[in-house]
Amino acid sequence: MADVVKFDEHPSDTLRAGANFNLAGIDPASTPGYSGDKGAGESLLSELDGKLTQLQEQLFAESRTGGKKRVLLVLQAMDTAGKGGIVNHVMGQMNPQGVQFKAFKAPTPEEQSYDFLWRIEKEVPAAGMVGVFDRSHYEDVLIHRVHRWADAVELDRRYRAINEFEARQTAAGTKIIKVMLHISRDEQQQRLLARLEDPSKRWKYSGNDLKERAFWDDYMDAYQAAFERTSSEHAPWHVIPANKKWYARIAVQQLLLDALNGLALQWPVPEIDVDMERELVRRS
Amino acid sequence: MADVVKFDEHPSDTLRAGANFNLAGIDPASTPGYSGDKGAGESLLSELDGKLTQLQEQLFAESRTGGKKRVLLVLQAMDTAGKGGIVNHVMGQMNPQGVQFKAFKAPTPEEQSYDFLWRIEKEVPAAGMVGVFDRSHYEDVLIHRVHRWADAVELDRRYRAINEFEARQTAAGTKIIKVMLHISRDEQQQRLLARLEDPSKRWKYSGNDLKERAFWDDYMDAYQAAFERTSSEHAPWHVIPANKKWYARIAVQQLLLDALNGLALQWPVPEIDVDMERELVRRS
Repeated sequence: MADVVKFDEHPSDTLRAGANFNLAGIDPASTPGYSGDKGAGESLLSELDGKLTQLQEQLFAESRTGGKKRVLLVLQAMDTAGKGGIVNHVMGQMNPQGVQFKAFKAPTPEEQSYDFLWRIEKEVPAAGMVGVFDRSHYEDVLIHRVHRWADAVELDRRYRAINEFEARQTAAGTKIIKVMLHISRDEQQQRLLARLEDPSKRWKYSGNDLKERAFWDDYMDAYQAAFERTSSEHAPWHVIPANKKWYARIAVQQLLLDALNGLALQWPVPEIDVDMERELVRRS
Repeated sequence: MADVVKFDEHPSDTLRAGANFNLAGIDPASTPGYSGDKGAGESLLSELDGKLTQLQEQLFAESRTGGKKRVLLVLQAMDTAGKGGIVNHVMGQMNPQGVQFKAFKAPTPEEQSYDFLWRIEKEVPAAGMVGVFDRSHYEDVLIHRVHRWADAVELDRRYRAINEFEARQTAAGTKIIKVMLHISRDEQQQRLLARLEDPSKRWKYSGNDLKERAFWDDYMDAYQAAFERTSSEHAPWHVIPANKKWYARIAVQQLLLDALNGLALQWPVPEIDVDMERELVRRS
């Protein structure tokens, strides 16, 4: 395996969609803050797995003694950008006991009969868990904006509702990490062609992908608008160049590590008399 | 890493609790059907991870085109026997997108107000998923039998209800794998002491473990009775010697592989004209 190369700059800073952020200025093939190559990146991913797993276990452990902290990773992207790979290769290294995964598909008739945040609230991670949303409430300001299923007034209501919702989750102990995996239009074309060629991937191909692809520029505008309206202090957006899958994975891993490290987790100290319990076990 | 050593005999056969099965005759420190040592076992676990992940993806893929197959692994054991390790090291290698994990704790007042299978039915795996129950409906014929919270008539009703429930799930496309991880009383004592010594494990220690430990023989009787009444053709029990954690992990991995191989999974062939779609993607 190649030597490990660490990040020069924290993705939490460099990839953040802050004030004056401009999506069009991001190169999807770039590797911001990272000077290593694919091999070095894969080594880094592998090396940090253990650290991520340990922090996750501490998060889980704290919740067993009343801790309210939890993490929510929100993944948004154009089709084929690699959400599945993030789930498999980054989250997949964690203990399944502590991961709460939810893929949001097109809403059912029942879900449509409620406000758009109804089905989201039901899936927020429990205390101690790392939640992952594969698509999310942001579909309601992305695809809905692109296809004009919501007008400007309704979109405005939704941006504000999202900010209130996320502020409330944050206050309840949730560290929210919002990620857009950013691929180029050409890269998507290559990946769609690759799906068609490989029988083990062909089932993932949907004619619908092509339909949404035709609205590429409108989607980029919708993402830009979402960043401007909902990249808040407590729940900032991060745009991760994702033409290079290995880079996207180490970048998301870093965001998770930074978030978990920021929680200052400790092993809980149970209220037991260890000497007494040891003696009781010995006599049992 | 040590050389891979394969199983001489299939755990699906050797560890099955069939007719005349006697729990007392199983040595928790043994490694039935396996002649390798710890290093060889760890190499085997690692080597077969990829195969397990591929089969899981095929199971998931089939469900996207209407397939109804799914797998349910039921884990039962005395405290410290290693259920968590199985989840982390065997299921943990799978894609979290396709794993549905549920830990059943002591029932809530709401759950208690229903029949014991109410909360179980809600958690059966969706089509295409590999479900894992950490404890299960069997608690209702184990701890309830040990502490006499249910009398003989009620236990009889529950055994029959469980068989009907599992037969119905099987008919709906679920391959059920039931596993008891079997440790010795002495091994449990050592593991409880180890939990007390290690600050990163101490939070897992509960005074309640010691209380249930005092009923060890009653639990073994309750397991024996459960095997006799509910080890059916379609949902047999397997008793896995678990004093050696590495053995328990490769044995469960084998049971999962056997179950998935038995489903004769295929990559779905989507109803698309590949040549036409390829051209459409190229022009897009």
